[in-house]
Amino acid sequence: MSYQRFSIESLHELARQAMTKVGASPGDAETFATGLVAADARGIESHGVARLDAYANQVERGFMDPKAQPEVVRDAPATALVDAHNGIGHVASTFAMRLAMDKARQAGIGWVVVIHSNHYGIAGYYARMALERDLIGICLTNSGPVVAPTFGREKLLGTNPIALAAPSGSQEPFLLDMATSTVAGGKLQIALWEGKPVPKGWGLDAAGLATTDPAAILKEGAMLALGSFPELSSYKGYGLSMMVEILTDMLGGAPFGMEAGNLSLTEAGAPSETSHLFAAIDVSRFIPIERFKARMDE
Amino acid sequence: MSYQRFSIESLHELARQAMTKVGASPGDAETFATGLVAADARGIESHGVARLDAYANQVERGFMDPKAQPEVVRDAPATALVDAHNGIGHVASTFAMRLAMDKARQAGIGWVVVIHSNHYGIAGYYARMALERDLIGICLTNSGPVVAPTFGREKLLGTNPIALAAPSGSQEPFLLDMATSTVAGGKLQIALWEGKPVPKGWGLDAAGLATTDPAAILKEGAMLALGSFPELSSYKGYGLSMMVEILTDMLGGAPFGMEAGNLSLTEAGAPSETSHLFAAIDVSRFIPIERFKARMDE
Repeated sequence: MSYQRFSIESLHELARQAMTKVGASPGDAETFATGLVAADARGIESHGVARLDAYANQVERGFMDPKAQPEVVRDAPATALVDAHNGIGHVASTFAMRLAMDKARQAGIGWVVVIHSNHYGIAGYYARMALERDLIGICLTNSGPVVAPTFGREKLLGTNPIALAAPSGSQEPFLLDMATSTVAGGKLQIALWEGKPVPKGWGLDAAGLATTDPAAILKEGAMLALGSFPELSSYKGYGLSMMVEILTDMLGGAPFGMEAGNLSLTEAGAPSETSHLFAAIDVSRFIPIERFKARMDE
Repeated sequence: MSYQRFSIESLHELARQAMTKVGASPGDAETFATGLVAADARGIESHGVARLDAYANQVERGFMDPKAQPEVVRDAPATALVDAHNGIGHVASTFAMRLAMDKARQAGIGWVVVIHSNHYGIAGYYARMALERDLIGICLTNSGPVVAPTFGREKLLGTNPIALAAPSGSQEPFLLDMATSTVAGGKLQIALWEGKPVPKGWGLDAAGLATTDPAAILKEGAMLALGSFPELSSYKGYGLSMMVEILTDMLGGAPFGMEAGNLSLTEAGAPSETSHLFAAIDVSRFIPIERFKARMDE
């Protein structure tokens, strides 16, 4: 495969115009484009403008409503439940992360679950939003079933990522943004494109055996949970994936990853019914922020 | 090795009397004993009464104060910082989990960090406390350095466990209670006692090479983070361990796991300076609890 370079500005413009064309308001198209190209800017091309066609396709087939506005349906001092009404994932998610940050300022922590949403790009983007306000940011999302549970070979779990960003002083801020599977799907996709084998432990073939062939994993097989093998505690990756389901769809009363019609954007044939969690913690309610930053720098 | 059976009642009595003898109040000795034997009752003997001597030893050497009372030093509607003043870990932790549950009832979530604490037994015990009140419970703790970071061979990270308990209806409640290392230290200890080799991927020897000898791992080597090998994403186990440090000691302004004099109870020669996080989420602020329980049962 070969790469061609584009400026982030030109990708942003492309995304903004595409979403405006399918009916999004100027503000929502802007929010969508900013979230989308954040993935390209961080080198996670699998979650950026490369998916623009798939998003537009979801809208055209009536599975995503670009005009829908997120609505707060339950509210408490530190928590909220937001219904995305099947709108643009990036728009509902940006709204929910801002709400979590406002609540953090008031109550010490903000914890906002979003249901009936769509694919929102990269979890780390929302966690990082908290850094502008000197908060710790956390973001989780469920996703479509592509991972086999420990001792299983059927795809029952999503890659269900966990992201956490923490502010720092003069050094780079801390950012964890990890799938709870051994690797994210994008890594297998890239190996497939490049025609390269993958390490044993990334996935199973159709017969449920460990394979190094990315095509066998992606087509008829399944990915593996972090830990890869039972004797290396892959039930822990499985457990972390379940933790993400509990804190997103179960808490929000929305479909479990594997119950949803199809959460995978690329094969989408139904509303994706994605659920997310956004949390922000006000460090200054615990210790002075400058002290926290200095320690993070260490 | 051979096992002898004791009733939980007799272990509780033993623990209660031992802690009373070294100066704890009747209530604190009771709280300590209840938390301690919870580990034995769940079959995690490495964290139960087997450690009673080590706790008493910490007190006798002046490294743990059985009379110290936990104090709320910072307070917000949904968060708090508690100073355990180097008291009994189980006492400060039970207090902090109750505080988190009260805050969850008021604000939707409660998020309480404890600093200057001691070894508190098993994380799952505190997470499960939330179930009595139909709340989701979360508990994290830092711990002494026994795990090598990805590409390293020096012990820099703790086993830093993550526990989450969620209520259910007629089925068993969900409980995740996992070290962020491939296995908890207790599993290596048991293999050592039984004279059995362990799977490759649990730890390194003194030269930094993967070994199946538990003695080599425990004595001069290091344990490995979940994922075990770089190509199986052990940097994720490393990242999760860092996440635990950020949400416990960094947020509380207390020593980082590897900075502390010695957090390991068995080799203790200084106050352990352990930090914990206790969180509770009020499900009913999101969806009706009966609906949540019914879905968890599924």
